[in-house]
Amino acid sequence: MDYVGITNFKTLLVITRNEKTFHLTPVIEATINLPADMKGAHMSRISESVIEIINDERNAHNSVEELSLQVLKKLKEKHPYTNAHLSLNFDFFYETKTPVSKKKTFEVTNITVKTWVEDRKEDQIEISIEYIGNTVCPHAMENHPKKRTHIQRALGKLSARGQIEHLPSFESMVEVLRKSFSAETYSILKTDDEQSVIDCMYENPMFVEDVCRSMLAKAKEKFKDKKLDLEAIVKSLESIHKHDVIAKGSTKTYD
Amino acid sequence: MDYVGITNFKTLLVITRNEKTFHLTPVIEATINLPADMKGAHMSRISESVIEIINDERNAHNSVEELSLQVLKKLKEKHPYTNAHLSLNFDFFYETKTPVSKKKTFEVTNITVKTWVEDRKEDQIEISIEYIGNTVCPHAMENHPKKRTHIQRALGKLSARGQIEHLPSFESMVEVLRKSFSAETYSILKTDDEQSVIDCMYENPMFVEDVCRSMLAKAKEKFKDKKLDLEAIVKSLESIHKHDVIAKGSTKTYD
Amino acid sequence: MDYVGITNFKTLLVITRNEKTFHLTPVIEATINLPADMKGAHMSRISESVIEIINDERNAHNSVEELSLQVLKKLKEKHPYTNAHLSLNFDFFYETKTPVSKKKTFEVTNITVKTWVEDRKEDQIEISIEYIGNTVCPHAMENHPKKRTHIQRALGKLSARGQIEHLPSFESMVEVLRKSFSAETYSILKTDDEQSVIDCMYENPMFVEDVCRSMLAKAKEKFKDKKLDLEAIVKSLESIHKHDVIAKGSTKTYD
Amino acid sequence: MDYVGITNFKTLLVITRNEKTFHLTPVIEATINLPADMKGAHMSRISESVIEIINDERNAHNSVEELSLQVLKKLKEKHPYTNAHLSLNFDFFYETKTPVSKKKTFEVTNITVKTWVEDRKEDQIEISIEYIGNTVCPHAMENHPKKRTHIQRALGKLSARGQIEHLPSFESMVEVLRKSFSAETYSILKTDDEQSVIDCMYENPMFVEDVCRSMLAKAKEKFKDKKLDLEAIVKSLESIHKHDVIAKGSTKTYD
Repeated sequence: MDYVGITNFKTLLVITRNEKTFHLTPVIEATINLPADMKGAHMSRISESVIEIINDERNAHNSVEELSLQVLKKLKEKHPYTNAHLSLNFDFFYETKTPVSKKKTFEVTNITVKTWVEDRKEDQIEISIEYIGNTVCPHAMENHPKKRTHIQRALGKLSARGQIEHLPSFESMVEVLRKSFSAETYSILKTDDEQSVIDCMYENPMFVEDVCRSMLAKAKEKFKDKKLDLEAIVKSLESIHKHDVIAKGSTKTYD
Repeated sequence: MDYVGITNFKTLLVITRNEKTFHLTPVIEATINLPADMKGAHMSRISESVIEIINDERNAHNSVEELSLQVLKKLKEKHPYTNAHLSLNFDFFYETKTPVSKKKTFEVTNITVKTWVEDRKEDQIEISIEYIGNTVCPHAMENHPKKRTHIQRALGKLSARGQIEHLPSFESMVEVLRKSFSAETYSILKTDDEQSVIDCMYENPMFVEDVCRSMLAKAKEKFKDKKLDLEAIVKSLESIHKHDVIAKGSTKTYD
Repeated sequence: MDYVGITNFKTLLVITRNEKTFHLTPVIEATINLPADMKGAHMSRISESVIEIINDERNAHNSVEELSLQVLKKLKEKHPYTNAHLSLNFDFFYETKTPVSKKKTFEVTNITVKTWVEDRKEDQIEISIEYIGNTVCPHAMENHPKKRTHIQRALGKLSARGQIEHLPSFESMVEVLRKSFSAETYSILKTDDEQSVIDCMYENPMFVEDVCRSMLAKAKEKFKDKKLDLEAIVKSLESIHKHDVIAKGSTKTYD
Repeated sequence: MDYVGITNFKTLLVITRNEKTFHLTPVIEATINLPADMKGAHMSRISESVIEIINDERNAHNSVEELSLQVLKKLKEKHPYTNAHLSLNFDFFYETKTPVSKKKTFEVTNITVKTWVEDRKEDQIEISIEYIGNTVCPHAMENHPKKRTHIQRALGKLSARGQIEHLPSFESMVEVLRKSFSAETYSILKTDDEQSVIDCMYENPMFVEDVCRSMLAKAKEKFKDKKLDLEAIVKSLESIHKHDVIAKGSTKTYD
C-alpha cells in the first residue's frame, strides 16, 4: 500500500497570529504507508493524532507548519509507519489598501500546507497559495492599431517546498503573488482605483506563461537565502474562448 | 413529501437528429410527490420508467422533450403520483465558422431539459442552455481618456418554459445566446479572427445586466409567436476583482 | 432586472460567541433589484456595504442574523432599492462526546444565512444547516431472513425561515439534525463507540423520506412556539447503486 | 516552462465502436513544453491540432488511444516541442444484467486517456477508469455478536500505463473494477436483485485498502502478458463518519 488514511476530514484548528485568535475549520488529509504485514490501518488512531494536537484550545498554535510535524510525530507514537503525509487546506486573509482611494480591504486567499515525514529522508513541508489575478494578451495588443487586446481573470498557485527552517511566511508568498499578474485584484475599487488597475493591466500585458515565469523569478529573488523547490501553475479563463489556457513551471526548469 | 426520487442517475440515451445517431450519457433526476398514505416510494419503478423509455436503441428518439413526457407517462402507469418531475442534463454541440478565416469549428454548450407533469395543470417543459461569453465594462471605458476598460469571461444561462408545442429548438436558443454578449466565443481563433472578436468586444461594451437584458429582449423577439416564460442569468468573472458579479431577469419583470 | 449584485465574494467576518472571537471568511452574495430608470448598479457600493459592517474588528458581532440586517440597511443608504438579498455561507463547529468512550470531539457543519429585505414585506431570514448522516434501508431489512440491509452516507439540509425574533439558534437546529438520521456521525470512534453507532443504525432503519419527515417533525416540535417555514432535503448516496436517492419536504405540505 | 497549453477544452469527438457511431464531447487538455528561446506558445496551433484530428466525421476513429498519438504527431508538425501531453475525459457505458431478475441495464463509468510523447522516451498512454462501488467493514463485523457492520459507497479508480500495444481494452478494465468491491452496483435492482447484492456485500466484507489490493491483484492477473504500470486509488464515503477514508496502491509496491 502506497498509503492509507483519512481525507475530507474537518475539525477545529485554533491558531494565534499577531495576538489574534483564529478558529479555523481546515479540510485535512492524513495518510500513512501500511507495513506489509498489516492487513488494515487503525484509522481511528490517525483521526486521534490529528485531533489531539490541533483541537487543543489551551495551547493555541502559531504555526501550521510546526503543528503539522507534531501531528505526524504523535501519529508515529500511536501507529507504526515509515512514511506519513499530512495536508491542511484553509482560507487565509491579508489586509491591504486600494491603490488610489487608500480604502482598507481584507483579501482572502486559499492555502494548503502539506507535510511529508519519511524514515530515510528529511521532513519536507510544502506551502501552496492560490491567488486570483488576470492576464492581458501581449500578442493581440502588439498587433492591434489601437492597442486593443483581450483581458481575463487568471488563477495562480505558487508552491514552496523545503525543510521547516527554510519555509517562507504565508505573507511573503502572498506578496510575490500580488505582484506577478498584469495587475493586483481587490474586493473593492472606487472609480479612481478601477482606472489605476486598468492602466496597470494595459502597461503590463502578460501571457499565462509570463505570469508563471514572473511568480518563479520573484520567488527566487525574494527567497534566495532559503533552500526551496518552487512550482508555479497559472490558468487563464480566456474571454475570447470557452476554454482555459494553462502554464506550469518549476525551479528545476531553470537550475 | 414534496418529492421523492432518484438523482445523479446516468444511463444511455440514444438520440437521432439530422440523420445522425447520438449516444449520450445524461445526468438525470426523476421525482414524484408521495401520496399521504404511502410510507415510501418504489424507487426501482422510477429508475425502470426512465430506462425503458430512453435506452431503447431500436426506437431512437429525436426529441428530448417528447421522450421526457413519455418517461413521466410510463412512470404514472408504474407508480401513482399527482406531481412528477424529470430533468436531463447533457452536452450539445453546434457547428460554426470563425469570423474572418472561416474555419469550421464545433462549439459545445450544456443543456438541461426539465419537465413537470401535475394533475391539475398543463404539462410544462423548460429548456435551459448555458453559454460561455464575456463582458466589457462600459463605465470604465467611458471614463478613461484612452477608452481602456476591463474585460472578462461571463457565463450565461437562458431558460424558456412552456408547453411542448411552444418550445423553441435548442439551435434557436443557442443563436440568441451567441448574439447576447459583447462578443461571440470560439474554440479556435487565428490572428485575424482574434482581432475581429476583440474589436467586437470594444464596440459592444456591456455590463452583466446588459447581457441579461439582451438575452431576454432577443429571445422575446425571436420567439414572439410562442407562449413562453423566459429567464436569463449571467455571472461575470471580473478580471479586476476576486469575486463575480451577477444579474438575473425574467419576462415577468417586463410584462 | 430581478436582481444585480456580487457573488462568491469573500472577506473577513469577525464574530464573538460565548466569549470567543472567531475570524471567519464566509462566501457572500449580495444583490438588489434595479429600479427601471437605472442602467446599471453601483457594484462598489454593494461591496462597501458588506465590508463596512462585517470587517469591523473593534465592534465584533455576535449574531450573523443581526449583522445581515445591518448590511442591507447600510446598503439602502448607499444605493436605492426596493428588494435586497444577502447570503453568507460558512463552516460552524459544535463540541460533542463519542457515545461510549466519551471522548470530546469537534464536529463541523456548513451554515447558510439568507436575508431578504423587501419594501412591502417584513424582513425575512432563513438559516440552513447541512449535516452528514446515514440511511439504512427498512424494506431490505424486513425482507431479509437475517435482517441484513444496505447502509450508506446521507446528506441532509434543514432550513428555517421567519422573522429574526422567531429564528432558532444554530445549536438547536444542529440538535434536530443530529437526531434525525439512523445514527449520529462522529469524527472519531473507538471500537466500542463504533459498535454503538452500528447498533443504533440497525435499530433505526430509515428511508431517505423517513429522515426528511423526521427532520421536519423534530423541528416542528422543538420550535413550536416560533413562526417558521421549515424545509428539509435529504440525499442518500446509495451503496448498491451508482446514483443517489433524494427526498424533500416542507411544513407547507403538512399544514 | 514545464508546459503550456489548453485545458477544459470541449469539442466533438466521433468514435465508432462495434458498428455504432458515438458523438462524444470530451473534456480535453493538451500541453507542450516551451523551448527556452520562445517567449510564448502558439495556442491556436494546439487547438487546431486537436480539432483537425478528432472532429473529422468522414473518418470516424475507433480508438481514443490511436487518435491521441495522431493529435500529438499533428501538433509536432505545427509547433516545435520535445515533450507533449494530451488528456481526454469522457463518459463510457457498458451493458450488463441484474443478478437475479436478469434485466438488461446500461451502466456509465468515467474514463480518462492520457498520452505522453517525449523526445527521448517511448510514447506512453495511461487509461484510468472510475467505478462507484462499496465497502463493508470487516473489523466491525468480526467484533459484533450479530455480525452487524457499517456499509457505504466507495469510489475507485484503476489506471494502467504503458505503450499502446500493451494497453488493455476499456471493457476488460471495467470487468476488473466490477469484481473488486464488496459487491457490484447497478442502476436498477428489483427486490430479489437487491437481496442478492446485499448478501454479496455481507459475504465479502472489505476495507478500503482491501478493495485497492483487489483491483491491483485482479488487474495483474488479467493483464499478465502485458507490460503495464498499474495504480489503484479508492475512497470510501464512511456512513459512520463525516469524512472519507482513502487508500492508494501501485504495482511498484509489489514488484
